[in-house]
Amino acid sequence: MFEVTVSDHVMVAHSLHGEVFGPAQALHGATYVVEASFARPDLDADGIVLDIGRATDALTGVLADLAYRNLDEVESLAGLNTTTEVLCREIADRLSARVHDGSLGIAAADLTRIRVTLRETPTAWASYERAP
Amino acid sequence: MFEVTVSDHVMVAHSLHGEVFGPAQALHGATYVVEASFARPDLDADGIVLDIGRATDALTGVLADLAYRNLDEVESLAGLNTTTEVLCREIADRLSARVHDGSLGIAAADLTRIRVTLRETPTAWASYERAP
Amino acid sequence: MFEVTVSDHVMVAHSLHGEVFGPAQALHGATYVVEASFARPDLDADGIVLDIGRATDALTGVLADLAYRNLDEVESLAGLNTTTEVLCREIADRLSARVHDGSLGIAAADLTRIRVTLRETPTAWASYERAP
Amino acid sequence: MFEVTVSDHVMVAHSLHGEVFGPAQALHGATYVVEASFARPDLDADGIVLDIGRATDALTGVLADLAYRNLDEVESLAGLNTTTEVLCREIADRLSARVHDGSLGIAAADLTRIRVTLRETPTAWASYERAP
Amino acid sequence: MFEVTVSDHVMVAHSLHGEVFGPAQALHGATYVVEASFARPDLDADGIVLDIGRATDALTGVLADLAYRNLDEVESLAGLNTTTEVLCREIADRLSARVHDGSLGIAAADLTRIRVTLRETPTAWASYERAP
Amino acid sequence: MFEVTVSDHVMVAHSLHGEVFGPAQALHGATYVVEASFARPDLDADGIVLDIGRATDALTGVLADLAYRNLDEVESLAGLNTTTEVLCREIADRLSARVHDGSLGIAAADLTRIRVTLRETPTAWASYERAP
Repeated sequence: MFEVTVSDHVMVAHSLHGEVFGPAQALHGATYVVEASFARPDLDADGIVLDIGRATDALTGVLADLAYRNLDEVESLAGLNTTTEVLCREIADRLSARVHDGSLGIAAADLTRIRVTLRETPTAWASYERAP
Repeated sequence: MFEVTVSDHVMVAHSLHGEVFGPAQALHGATYVVEASFARPDLDADGIVLDIGRATDALTGVLADLAYRNLDEVESLAGLNTTTEVLCREIADRLSARVHDGSLGIAAADLTRIRVTLRETPTAWASYERAP
Repeated sequence: MFEVTVSDHVMVAHSLHGEVFGPAQALHGATYVVEASFARPDLDADGIVLDIGRATDALTGVLADLAYRNLDEVESLAGLNTTTEVLCREIADRLSARVHDGSLGIAAADLTRIRVTLRETPTAWASYERAP
Repeated sequence: MFEVTVSDHVMVAHSLHGEVFGPAQALHGATYVVEASFARPDLDADGIVLDIGRATDALTGVLADLAYRNLDEVESLAGLNTTTEVLCREIADRLSARVHDGSLGIAAADLTRIRVTLRETPTAWASYERAP
Repeated sequence: MFEVTVSDHVMVAHSLHGEVFGPAQALHGATYVVEASFARPDLDADGIVLDIGRATDALTGVLADLAYRNLDEVESLAGLNTTTEVLCREIADRLSARVHDGSLGIAAADLTRIRVTLRETPTAWASYERAP
Repeated sequence: MFEVTVSDHVMVAHSLHGEVFGPAQALHGATYVVEASFARPDLDADGIVLDIGRATDALTGVLADLAYRNLDEVESLAGLNTTTEVLCREIADRLSARVHDGSLGIAAADLTRIRVTLRETPTAWASYERAP
């Protein structure tokens, strides 16, 4: 199994809903370092999992909808509690959509897994993995 | 699958038993950067794997028994060769016990994996994963 | 010259005022990894620059006023454009005040420099240094 | 499951063949930070996955064939498009051969996975995993 | 004193001239992680050292002349032994030129130091600092 | 001004003397990541500060006296309270001695500063700088 990962980052504000979040219920923010991983069992004819430039562009494109925003007011996230875990899933789902619409230049059928990791501090991070 | 990781560190002395360890058979020490990961297939109603504050407290609590100690003299480790691998397992087992006693505020049945990684130098680390 | 550095982090929301900030004029957020450095020409009788535990507590104490906050609404920052540079200075000034009030257990006269670095992303950071 | 990882690095030149590589079709270079991971379900009598010293020597030995070279002219890589993914596989295969020839002091049957990760920049890396 | 640093990376091939370089006399390559720092005693009216976006663009622009190249064949480096130290100075000099031509939107007179650091491996780096 | 830094690490046990150290008065240990920096105003004829291979060997040589040891029993450290700051100075002094005995292949007169940094955890480090 091969896996390629590209990384970018995004700075956002948001608040979290639920007593479990304690002080993080207030409006605060985060720099998320975001890693997007794409796995497949075999390489293509060029010897790659996918075009790393396209993967980077796709990740940057997905993050552009969130960058320098207050997530509490981002329409496409309405109704979501934007925890790190939920954002991992949201970004993975959007990357999956870009695989399916051809933006990454690879067929979804060639991939076996998409995984997204968000590092919110040096001591805490989350990840979510799904089928492509 | 979702996974949340929290990290802390601990400074200990110890010696290792067995010719394979060469100079590390002598009493020496390490700063272990410890990462504890908790995986589950679905998020709870708050949109999280578990309360990251509780996870951090649990990890810190487990490490408190080892911190600033000579592991050769820690009673709860008696009879163990405290290799990085063994310490990974020991810490994972203790975290699992805390899941089972309710300290992490999550039912063991909701988790599918606990993984502990110990980084002993910038160029060597070990991990152990188990069912919760 | 000796220097000791302790590090912590803080998650905040804020907005920046001025066209130069482009999209960062909107309310967004950041995880700042904060490093506080204390320099002195000679060590004390214990062989240290200062008590690293007290230094860590002082840094955590200073950051507690900012943690999980929208800096636009933090009274003690009123009137400040909370750029990374300004926050470096603000935190350094507050650490200096703690040196002067004795919280760090070291006389200001024994120190020659306080420096604060804030890392806002993996590719951008700022620092500020001042006399104690 | 236990896993031990050792890391080293190597500096090489190479060119990549295929339009998908854009400017990387030209002769350029990379510092690859290389991580080699060895997994097994149980520890040996010494409490380890394998001798970390031997693992490090094996990795260094494998990288010595590539170090400070133009990969386009390395005979043992002739006919390969030396993408990060292909180099991961090549290094994993060579480490596997060293497991099988006894260099690592562990029987291949005791291992369940070899994984090699190459970090080419702070924002892009690849990995390959195989049976031992 | 305030200092702002931005970081980028570049992948190049090159060879070094001189017996002191041993195997690095052969054509090989590197990923350089490049940090460019700009210092000034006071902040401007916006509360910044300089526009971090412009600083990033300037660094990327300077690196574009080197990216995915064999430095032995880059005209603007002809006659230079492209050691890490020399590249630090070269990049710092080019950034200085961009300060002087106004690209960074800051007067050279407002800056007191430009420093460039190149990290060539996890265990070796160099830096060069100069007046603006 | 140019500066070259090489890095290595060392694992030791020790205890610290003085109430200020709290629990660290007990025998414990650390992995120190050690950075040794050498500064000079101009480059030599090869375009370098010094031979990075020799610098690395010198650092490794100095650390070999400490590696896998209980510093409380290392004769050459007798009478020292082996705080991170003191170890920085000790290692810098020993590197200086190697500069003076010619081991680094550079005249002491050509250097303007030696600086040693020891990172003891991800959140605490110290450094010491001296004339060569």
